[in-house]
Amino acid sequence: MENGGAALAAWNFAPNDALLGLTVLSVRGVLGRVRPGMVEGSDAGARPVVPLGHGGPSAFPCFRTAPEAVDAVAGALRSGEHNSYAACIGLEPARRSISQSLSRDLPYELSSDDVYLTSGCAQAIEVVCSALARHGANILLPRPGYLFYEARAVFNNMEARYFDLVPERGWEVDLDGLQGLADGNTVAMVIVNPGNPCGNVYTYEHLGKIAEMARKLGIFVIADEVYAHLTFGEKFVPMGVFGSVAPVLTLGSISKRWVVPGWRLGWIVTNDPNGVFHKTKVVDSIKSYLDISSDPPTFVQGAIPQLIKNTKQEFFNKTVEVLRQTADICWEKLKGVSCTTCPSRPEGSMFVMVKLDLSCLKDIKDDMDFCCRLAKEELVVVLPGCAVGYKNWLRITFTVAPSSLEDGLDRLKSFCLRHSKRK
Amino acid sequence: MENGGAALAAWNFAPNDALLGLTVLSVRGVLGRVRPGMVEGSDAGARPVVPLGHGGPSAFPCFRTAPEAVDAVAGALRSGEHNSYAACIGLEPARRSISQSLSRDLPYELSSDDVYLTSGCAQAIEVVCSALARHGANILLPRPGYLFYEARAVFNNMEARYFDLVPERGWEVDLDGLQGLADGNTVAMVIVNPGNPCGNVYTYEHLGKIAEMARKLGIFVIADEVYAHLTFGEKFVPMGVFGSVAPVLTLGSISKRWVVPGWRLGWIVTNDPNGVFHKTKVVDSIKSYLDISSDPPTFVQGAIPQLIKNTKQEFFNKTVEVLRQTADICWEKLKGVSCTTCPSRPEGSMFVMVKLDLSCLKDIKDDMDFCCRLAKEELVVVLPGCAVGYKNWLRITFTVAPSSLEDGLDRLKSFCLRHSKRK
Repeated sequence: MENGGAALAAWNFAPNDALLGLTVLSVRGVLGRVRPGMVEGSDAGARPVVPLGHGGPSAFPCFRTAPEAVDAVAGALRSGEHNSYAACIGLEPARRSISQSLSRDLPYELSSDDVYLTSGCAQAIEVVCSALARHGANILLPRPGYLFYEARAVFNNMEARYFDLVPERGWEVDLDGLQGLADGNTVAMVIVNPGNPCGNVYTYEHLGKIAEMARKLGIFVIADEVYAHLTFGEKFVPMGVFGSVAPVLTLGSISKRWVVPGWRLGWIVTNDPNGVFHKTKVVDSIKSYLDISSDPPTFVQGAIPQLIKNTKQEFFNKTVEVLRQTADICWEKLKGVSCTTCPSRPEGSMFVMVKLDLSCLKDIKDDMDFCCRLAKEELVVVLPGCAVGYKNWLRITFTVAPSSLEDGLDRLKSFCLRHSKRK
Repeated sequence: MENGGAALAAWNFAPNDALLGLTVLSVRGVLGRVRPGMVEGSDAGARPVVPLGHGGPSAFPCFRTAPEAVDAVAGALRSGEHNSYAACIGLEPARRSISQSLSRDLPYELSSDDVYLTSGCAQAIEVVCSALARHGANILLPRPGYLFYEARAVFNNMEARYFDLVPERGWEVDLDGLQGLADGNTVAMVIVNPGNPCGNVYTYEHLGKIAEMARKLGIFVIADEVYAHLTFGEKFVPMGVFGSVAPVLTLGSISKRWVVPGWRLGWIVTNDPNGVFHKTKVVDSIKSYLDISSDPPTFVQGAIPQLIKNTKQEFFNKTVEVLRQTADICWEKLKGVSCTTCPSRPEGSMFVMVKLDLSCLKDIKDDMDFCCRLAKEELVVVLPGCAVGYKNWLRITFTVAPSSLEDGLDRLKSFCLRHSKRK
C-alpha cells in the first residue's frame, strides 16, 4: 500500500486548461522563460546580471525606502496592537489618512468610506475585476498594458477587449478605437497613469476627454495610479478629478512611491461625488469580494497614518530626482542602439517601450528570441513586448542604479550591433 | 455637468447577485448582523463587551505572541533586504524551514518544493479552491464547517456538497454519508483538524480511515491544519502522515500557533510521496493561480526561518496551557447553562459547539435571534450556528482572558435562565 499504491488509484482530477494558460500572460511567467539561458560567471571579474526586466528598485541603495516608513511599520509591529484580523475593508485610521492624502489633489473631499485596503495593487486589480465581472460582460484594456488585468478578467469569465495607446501621441488612448469596441455589455475601461509599460503621463485635457468618452459610453473608469507622483516631465493629475463626469475606481499602493512593493499595502478608492457606485451596487460587490478575501497585514495597515504623516518631502524629491536621472540616461543611451526606436521620452513610472526593427537584425526571430539571447549573451534581462501585449517591442525599466543602467544599455548596444545586418 | 450630471447617464452595470449573496456565508458578515444591537455603556462601571464570537486571542495579554517572533519580523523589515516582490511561490529559505519543521511529524521528508506560501490560510483556501475548480466539479465539505470554503468554491463555479460530522462520535466524519455524496466529478474533500468550529482532534485511526475512503473514491484530501499543535486532549496527528494512501494538500499558517493572524503568512503543502499532484497537474494549477495573485508580505517571508528557529518551546507550552485552562472553564461553565447541550469537551483549536434547545426557550426564534438578543441584553457576542452551516447551534470561542470568559459565560447563563420556560 505504501509504495506507489496511490498511483494505481484513479484520481478524479482534470486540470482547468484556461487557468493553466493564464501563466503565459504574467510578467513573472515570461521573465521565467527569458532567464534560464543565463549562466553567470563565478569568478571575481565576471559580469553581473543587469535586471532591466521588471521594476525592482528596492534592491538598489539609491532607491531605499524612507527610514520614517520603516519606523512606522516597526512601531506598529512592536505595539502588539495590530496582530489580529482587521475589518475586511481595512483599519479606519489607515483609510482616513489615505483619503485625506488623496483629497489634496481633488476638487472634492474623499471620506474614509471611499477607501478599501487591499494586499497591494495586485489584489486591488483582483477585487475590481471580480466585483465587476459577470458572465457576458467585457472590459476595455489598454494595449500595450499590464496583462494581469486580462488574466483576472478572463479567470472571472469576463471578456478582455483591447484599445490602442498611440505611440506617436505620447501613448494617448485611441478614443475612436475605444468607442468602436464598447457595447452594452462593457462595464469599464482601464487606464494606467503614469503608464506601465510606456512611461507616459497623461495631461489634464486628455484625462478629461477619457472621462467624457466613458460617460458617453456609460462605463466606469478604473484608474491604475500605482505610479502616482513618480513623474519627472508632465505633472501627475489624478483621474479622480473627473469623478463627477464619470465614476472612477482609483487603484493605488505604497509600493512604488515608497519603493516597498513587498509590504503589500494597496487600495481601491471610489472617486464618485454622484454616488453612482452605491446606486449600482458596485460598492456592495467590492465589499462582498473583500469579505471572502485575505487582507493586507494588519500592522502595515496600522502603520499607514504615521508612514504618510512622517515621510519627508525630501525623500519623495530624491526618489523622483534619481528616476529623472536614470530615465535621462535611458533615453540618451537608447538613441545610440541600432535596430531600435524609442518613440517618446519617459515622463513617469519606471519604464519605457522600445520598438525592435527586426528587418535590421540578421538572426533574431522575434522579441522573445531577442530577450532570451540578450540574457544569454549579455546577462541583461529586458521584458519582451509579448508580456505587455505588444509583439516585437521591449519594455525596459530604468529603476536600477545609474552605473548598472549604463552598463546594461551599453551591453544592449553591443548586442544589437553584433546582430545587426549593417554591422 | 458637474452637478448630478453623471446620475443622468446610464451606467452599464448589473451586479453579480451570486457574489452579493456570498457575504451571508462569512463569519464576519454574520457577526456584522449580530453586533448592531449592542449599546455599550460609557460610564466607568459599564459592562465590557465579551467577544466570544470569533477567535481573536491577540487582543489579550495572555495570548501575546512570542517576542522572538516580533524580533524576527522587525529584523527582516529593518534589514531592507525584503522590500521587493518575492517569487510567486514564496522565498526559498522560508519554504525550506516550513518543510523541515513539518517533516518532523511525518514518515517521509518534505522538500521546500512542496511548500507554497500564501497570504494567510484564507488565501491558501482561495488558491486551492481556484486551482481545483472547473465547471461541473464538486467538493465535499464538513458540516458544521468554515463556510469560507463554500464561498470560494461557489465563486469558482464549483459545487459544494456537505458531509456530516457526528457530534456523538467526537465530531468524526460520517464516512458512509460522505461516500454517498461523491461521484465522478468530486475532486476533493476537506477536513479541518484540529476542528473549527467543533474543537475536536481526530485520532490516528480516524485519519487513516479518511485516507482510505479518499483513496477508494479517487479524491484528494484538503487538510486544514491551521490549528495544528493547539491541542490539549488528543494528540495532533497531521493528515500528511497518510499522504501515500491519498494525496493531501495541507493548509497551515503562523496565525494561530503564534497568535498573529494579522501577519498574513500561510502555506499550502503537498503531502504526496507518490507524486500524484505533479502527474495530475494540480501543482501547475496552484502555481498558475499564485502567478495571478498577491503574495504574502516579503519581509514576513524573510523572517520565517528565524521565527521558527528562535521561538522557544516554553511559548508554545504556555499558549496551550492557557487554552487548556479556558477550554476547561468553558466546558465546566456550559454544564450549568440551561437550554443548551455541549456534546463533547473541546480538545483543540479555539472553539466549541453548543446545541440550543429552542423548545425550552420561551421567546427565542432561532440561533440568529438568540445571538442578536444575547448581544443586546448581555453584551456577549457568540456566533450563530448558521454561520457554520449548523442551524440552532452556537459556536463559542474560549480564546479570551479567563476572567472575561467566566464573566461572559455567566452572562450567557443568566440570559438562558431569563428566557427559559422553566424559570
